This record gives sequence, structure tokens and C-alpha cells, in this order.
Amino acid sequence: MSASNRKQALIPQGAEILPNPTGTAPGIIWQPRANLTIFTFPGVPSEMHRMWEETAVPYLKSQGWGKQIIYSRMLRFWNVSESAMAEKVSAYLNLPNPTVAPYASKGQVKLRVSAKASSESEAESLIEPVAKQIQEIAGLDYFGADDDTLASVVGDLLRKSGETLSVAESCTGGTLGGMLTDIAGSSDYFWGGVISYDNSVKAGILGVNSEDLEKYGAVSSIVAEQMAVGVRKQLGTTWGLSITGIAGPGGGTETKPVGLVYVGLAGENGVESFEFRFNPVRGRSLIRHFSACNALDSLRRKLIVGNG
Amino acid sequence: MSASNRKQALIPQGAEILPNPTGTAPGIIWQPRANLTIFTFPGVPSEMHRMWEETAVPYLKSQGWGKQIIYSRMLRFWNVSESAMAEKVSAYLNLPNPTVAPYASKGQVKLRVSAKASSESEAESLIEPVAKQIQEIAGLDYFGADDDTLASVVGDLLRKSGETLSVAESCTGGTLGGMLTDIAGSSDYFWGGVISYDNSVKAGILGVNSEDLEKYGAVSSIVAEQMAVGVRKQLGTTWGLSITGIAGPGGGTETKPVGLVYVGLAGENGVESFEFRFNPVRGRSLIRHFSACNALDSLRRKLIVGNG
Repeated sequence: MSASNRKQALIPQGAEILPNPTGTAPGIIWQPRANLTIFTFPGVPSEMHRMWEETAVPYLKSQGWGKQIIYSRMLRFWNVSESAMAEKVSAYLNLPNPTVAPYASKGQVKLRVSAKASSESEAESLIEPVAKQIQEIAGLDYFGADDDTLASVVGDLLRKSGETLSVAESCTGGTLGGMLTDIAGSSDYFWGGVISYDNSVKAGILGVNSEDLEKYGAVSSIVAEQMAVGVRKQLGTTWGLSITGIAGPGGGTETKPVGLVYVGLAGENGVESFEFRFNPVRGRSLIRHFSACNALDSLRRKLIVGNG
Repeated sequence: MSASNRKQALIPQGAEILPNPTGTAPGIIWQPRANLTIFTFPGVPSEMHRMWEETAVPYLKSQGWGKQIIYSRMLRFWNVSESAMAEKVSAYLNLPNPTVAPYASKGQVKLRVSAKASSESEAESLIEPVAKQIQEIAGLDYFGADDDTLASVVGDLLRKSGETLSVAESCTGGTLGGMLTDIAGSSDYFWGGVISYDNSVKAGILGVNSEDLEKYGAVSSIVAEQMAVGVRKQLGTTWGLSITGIAGPGGGTETKPVGLVYVGLAGENGVESFEFRFNPVRGRSLIRHFSACNALDSLRRKLIVGNG
């Protein structure tokens, strides 16, 4: 053990240990004198977060704090801009309790509905009718709440219908599969996929037609469709979902600029494709993120609406 | 255009626009009276960051600010703990100029070497000898500086030697491919891969022996090696890199606990594998991240040291 580890293990006399369920550094609760209580936490946000919830909150409650609580539900939307969403629900943005506040990050728009109440259940009964009305206004653009992600929602839909999914990724290079498998239990419906970054992989494993690759280019609706069909057939899944696009910064042309992305979706009733044009100024990383999210969202809408 | 977009376009009289190179919301520079200058930026951190560097810093410099600058180099390490690293370089942690400060996040240890000087080049000449000595102390655990990532460093090594890479991912489900393709220009050396989340994909596309899968289990060194050999062969690359493991929270057993991960690495001289045991309390997301980083790090060390 190094001397710095030894030093890290020291605590002030009379302090209580705050256990850390996800890391090695504990925190302390320390009352050096009356009316002064000091909490310490490690600096890693995820560790601090869990310690706060699992140890600090129960301690504070036991000391009589938190008679009035603030409780929130985060409503999540895709394929709508923050300002358009705020406009649609403008009637709710000045409510006193619950309050409704818009947020946005990485293409996702969120509305946080927060209630002040004396208990979680009382807060929930204030939140529920407002959340429901907002969901109705948003329609299919609403995809989930709180810890839901596009990948977890798609997963729930697939599990419910007993269907399976495979992916073929070009410009996202595995990001879509990474999002899907970030969900515990995703092996129930996600079987895997092919990262066809190089055209030889598109033609080889996925069976994309070499002449079409040459004629239409790797970034085209026809190649996206053939990738989706190919991975679905190779892996024997209900759905095949593909992405091909130009994430930049290089590789763009006048007719096929950086940010042009095609998503292919193959199912038992055939294949379709969707074109997206993201602003090149967003940069490579966000364009890849948007591409994977929009692929998931295309499948989500298909799973909800069906072929009807 | 929605009314809220119109409102967003208003600026105070006499204010200058701070252009936003990566988003739609501009900022302002406004001097409502002498000796008071107000800068505003959008709330998105990446947009704010670029606007600060590209517009606010030049403006401040033009106003005579920043005669004395602080300039830093971030040294990056893998496979060493923050406290062990701090111990090794303890002689440097109390230097006055440059200063050396340890950081850690998601398994990566960093040392920030910062110098105060009147110019970047003067700061660099203060930083360079200290950085060099620290790199020598760290040996192979040092992998890069500043914007380098394990994936970018591996990419540079592959590009330099004209070699190519493919990946086979089970528990990471595409995360490794995602890291590799996050680097612009990665198509020079990264050809793609197979996400073999389901065992049928391991046996089918990758040609993992079904009897071995049954006998040793999907999370075993032999399956990791066969996955690496299989993807290398299927895609025709110089190297095949594979990951199979138990990311949790479910799926662990007494002999194969959550956090057990095997990395396979196949090259022209054969195949080898590496076992990792991550603490289950780290959680699914970090275990997957550690797995992908350690796979990259295994290849990095191999590319540097060779077979010698």
C-alpha cells in the first residue's frame, strides 16, 4: 500500500464513515461542534451521486430535514426542437406547482415537471395529469421519461413483441450497437451486427451489391437498404437496422455533404430508408450521435405505428 | 419561425455579436458603460468552449489582457492507479513552475503540467523537460498527451506501420468500434468488425467452435482468441481484436463473476489473450468502458513492444 493511500484512509476524530458503494474512497459525516455538520464525498460525480442518495439523504431525513420535498419527472422527446416544443406547451411553462421547464442536450429535448409536496406520492399526483397532457400534445415525439433512453424504449418494444434486432453500421462504427447494449438485458432482443466501415465489409459479409456501391456510392439510400437487408438475413433477426453517412470532417462533396446520413430498416414486410441532413458545424462526434439516435427513433416509430 | 426563436434573436442596443461556429445561438459582447463589459454565451458546453477560444480570447487579448499566460500539457496514463502514479512522480508534485497535478477519470490517470510564462513557447520550454522525465518514469503506462486517446494512439501506430484492424465485440457491443471510429481518418486502418452479442453470431460469422463455446463458455480465453482469429480472417486485416466478458448486473457466477473480461489479439504470428477482473461495483457502463480501453491498450503495447 502506498503512503498516499494511507493518508487517504485518515478521518477526523469523531467522524462517521459514509460508505461508497461504487468506489474505494469513502466520505464522512462530521459534527465538529453543535449546529455544524460537515459531509464529504469523493470527487467522482457518479460515486458522489450514489452516496448522496444512499447515505446522505437517509441521514438528513433522520435529522428531520426534508419535510417538504421537490420531486421531478423528466419527459423526453426526439425529433422536435427545444423552441418548437416550448411553443407547443407554452401554456404549461408558467404553472406554479408543478412547474415545467424545458432543457435540451445533444439533440434531445426534455421537459422537467417538478412538484413541491409533503411526499413523493403527493408530488406524483400533482405531476401525473400535467405530464399526461404534455405527452398527448407531443404525440410520437415523446419517447419516454426519467431514465428511459431511445435504446431502452426500443428494447422494451422489441421484448414485448418477442422480436429481435441486428445492426449494420458504417459511419457510426459501433455506436448504435454500443447504445443498444448499454441496456442491461439487451441480449433478450439484440443479437449483434456488423461494423462495415470499409466497403469490402459491406460487399463481403453484408452482401451489398458492388455495382450499386460503385454507382450510387456507399452513402446512398440503396446501400443503406441493402445493408439492413443483409445484416437481418445474416443474423436471422426480425429487424435489420443500418446506418451509412458522412460524419466528417473530410469526405464531403457538393452533392453529398458532411452530415448526410441514410438509415435503412428491414423487416419481414420489406425494407425502407430515411435520409437525414445534419449541419456539418455540429462536428463528427455529434453527427455520429445524431445518426445512431435517429436510427433508433426510426425503429421506435415503426414499432409503435406498424405498417398500417 | 416560432415566436420564441424571434425573441432569441433580440440583442441589446450597441452589443456586438459573438458568432457561434458550432450551433445556432450566438453570444454577445456588450459594454453598457465604461469599465463594464458583459460577455454572454449559449449554455451548451461544447459551443461555449469553442466560442470562448475563437472569439472571446482574441477579444480579451486585443484589449491588453493575458500578458502572463498559464499553459498546460496533460500527460495521459493507462493501467496504473492515481495513487501509484502520484507516488512515482512525488518529487514533481511540489514544483513551483511548472506545477504538476494528478487527475483521474474512468480508469485513466492524468498529470497536468502547467507553466506560467509570458508566451506559449516560453511555457512549453518550462514544461518539456519535466514532461519528458515523467514519461520516462512511467514507461509504457504513458500513452499520450492532450487530445490523445487510446484509440487515436493505436490509430497512429497502425497508420505508421501500414497495418489494419478489425474487432469482434461481445459484452461491449460496439463500444470498441465506436471509440476507434470516433477518430477522424480511422478508415485508413480500421476496416470494421462483428458485434457477436449472441452466441449464434460468434459461431456463425466468426467461426467460433460450438463445442468450445459449450465447454468453456462464451466468456473464456479460448473463445476470445477464436473471436479475434475469426474476425481477422473474415475481414482480412493485419490484426483482430476481440472482447468477451460479463458486464453485469446479471449473468455472473461464482467462477465467472461480473467484471470478468477476456481480450483476444490475433496477428500474423498467432493469437494471445488477456484476462481482466474489474470490480463489479463499478457497474455495467464502466466495466464496458474499461473493457474497450484495455483492449485498445493491449494492442497499443503489442504494437510498441512487438513480439521481441
